[in-house]
Amino acid sequence: MTDGLLDVVGIGNAIVDVLARADEAFLARHELAKGAMTLVDEPRATALYAAMGSAIEVSGGSAANTIAGLASLGGRAGFIGKVGRDTLGEVFRHDIRAGGVVFETPAAASATPTARCLILVTPDAQRTMNTYLGASVEIEPEDVDAALIGRAKVTYLEGYLWDPPAAKAAFLKAAEAAHGAGRKVALSLSDGFCVERHRAEFRQLLGRHVDILFANEWEIRSLWEVAGFDEALQATRGVCEVAALTRSAKGSVILAGGDVHVADAAPVAKVVDTTGAGDLYAAGFLHGYTRGLPAYDCARIGAIAAAEVISHFGARPETPLWNLLPEALAPAVARA
Amino acid sequence: MTDGLLDVVGIGNAIVDVLARADEAFLARHELAKGAMTLVDEPRATALYAAMGSAIEVSGGSAANTIAGLASLGGRAGFIGKVGRDTLGEVFRHDIRAGGVVFETPAAASATPTARCLILVTPDAQRTMNTYLGASVEIEPEDVDAALIGRAKVTYLEGYLWDPPAAKAAFLKAAEAAHGAGRKVALSLSDGFCVERHRAEFRQLLGRHVDILFANEWEIRSLWEVAGFDEALQATRGVCEVAALTRSAKGSVILAGGDVHVADAAPVAKVVDTTGAGDLYAAGFLHGYTRGLPAYDCARIGAIAAAEVISHFGARPETPLWNLLPEALAPAVARA
Repeated sequence: MTDGLLDVVGIGNAIVDVLARADEAFLARHELAKGAMTLVDEPRATALYAAMGSAIEVSGGSAANTIAGLASLGGRAGFIGKVGRDTLGEVFRHDIRAGGVVFETPAAASATPTARCLILVTPDAQRTMNTYLGASVEIEPEDVDAALIGRAKVTYLEGYLWDPPAAKAAFLKAAEAAHGAGRKVALSLSDGFCVERHRAEFRQLLGRHVDILFANEWEIRSLWEVAGFDEALQATRGVCEVAALTRSAKGSVILAGGDVHVADAAPVAKVVDTTGAGDLYAAGFLHGYTRGLPAYDCARIGAIAAAEVISHFGARPETPLWNLLPEALAPAVARA
Repeated sequence: MTDGLLDVVGIGNAIVDVLARADEAFLARHELAKGAMTLVDEPRATALYAAMGSAIEVSGGSAANTIAGLASLGGRAGFIGKVGRDTLGEVFRHDIRAGGVVFETPAAASATPTARCLILVTPDAQRTMNTYLGASVEIEPEDVDAALIGRAKVTYLEGYLWDPPAAKAAFLKAAEAAHGAGRKVALSLSDGFCVERHRAEFRQLLGRHVDILFANEWEIRSLWEVAGFDEALQATRGVCEVAALTRSAKGSVILAGGDVHVADAAPVAKVVDTTGAGDLYAAGFLHGYTRGLPAYDCARIGAIAAAEVISHFGARPETPLWNLLPEALAPAVARA
């Protein structure tokens, strides 16, 4: 696994999630933006943690969740991100490596703690995220291993990387290394507020550096500053090779070449926690993509992976995802 | 909550659980005693952690789980136990306090890390536990706050406390403080291997210091060195005021005064992870006991609390347990 071709290398903030249930009154009392990811500083993170209920800790991070999901589907994957020199950093490293993912980025040189995301899950299964970036902001261009990037069919970048200033340079170095090696670059827009923070730069990036775009409805409407989904869809046409636009229970719409496909969400007995839904959709989609499947089948695998992760607490799969692929898709995936 | 009468104070090892799924082959390969709790040293813990899959971290510890469960049922509770000066220690402290439990024991003076229990959950939902005791062995008699003990109707002790040598003295001090204040002492035998390690001392304890005994079938048979459950039941008669003997899906048998009651297990749609089943049974039983309910009703509440915790990953309740009590029990509990 340390040599040879990889399917996807992900670059993102290395974060441990701290998940607890909360009611709507808790969100109101602490002025939390429901369903969004808000950046918080350490004092705010400490105060919120003290106020929230009994929690569980589980490795997270958007791109890292995607990479863990891809490995769980049977893909070969790598990850680049910065943890701190502490227990949560060891937890993050253990968990992503446990799935067979190549993860060699050295921990931060400083004493800054590993990033954590305080996630409040309301009774409607929605998650509200509050991220203290900690050591993850110390990622630098020299952490981007161009040789690793060159080995992967796709380099996957999360929009959240645009938040830590030094990470932008790492992001651009990775995109250039990928294209220099004749590989593809994928980007997730991450969060509607993240798009607001970096809209102009994201628009520039799309034309110059991105082959495959992932966005949910809020993000793509925010990117183009339009009110309706169809308007956002039309604005996205021709911007990059592939765009997968996710719409929660409404499924996803995929722009691929000149075609438009509409795929349904996969059924879920009970939605417990939507944390990681978009990340796992991207995992499934990229698994199909790197095996050369048609766009519609990529979306179906994405939907299956997302359905697993929203059926339990936490943003990493609890069961090997390749077990969940239907007969019709599994042989195609194995064959490639 | 910092003054006034408490229902139960628990004393036990302060542990964070690290849970991952594993198959039977993994247990065989690493020579793990399925279904048991095995003590491991730090090198063995490190090696096992490296070998196990992606995990979640959640506060644990047998007596601590019981106390968290009691608070979730609406009881007033305190806990005494030793964490390290590290992130996992902060996690443990946060989680137990988040339920309203009084927990003031200072962290260890040393740099020894917080105790952790590596738990492998097999597809049959059985858990196999490997505990590195870490800072929890540094509990001392002076950590036992006699004033706190005196405020609680019941002091609840876990048999696992007999493993760290210094904890025995803390255990005995607590039992004496409780009885000196006219309170009750409850003991859980914890684990069959734990009973084997300390059989003679546990037998002595029962006669001298214990009013309420909790044991599962393996533990009570090991205590009396008999082959059958009924034999163990007969041997337990008259040993202490109340004994609750749990039998997994077969329910529990309660000896109370001269009476014997047989209570069924509560139904569970799907058993996901049996970690904490005995701990939460004790929580429910003690909740009823401290409200003066008849023994059979105590067992019913115990069964309901156990059913919740085995329906998901981890040994702490995910939903407020008082919500789960049936009409017939809830008013009685509220009235008392």
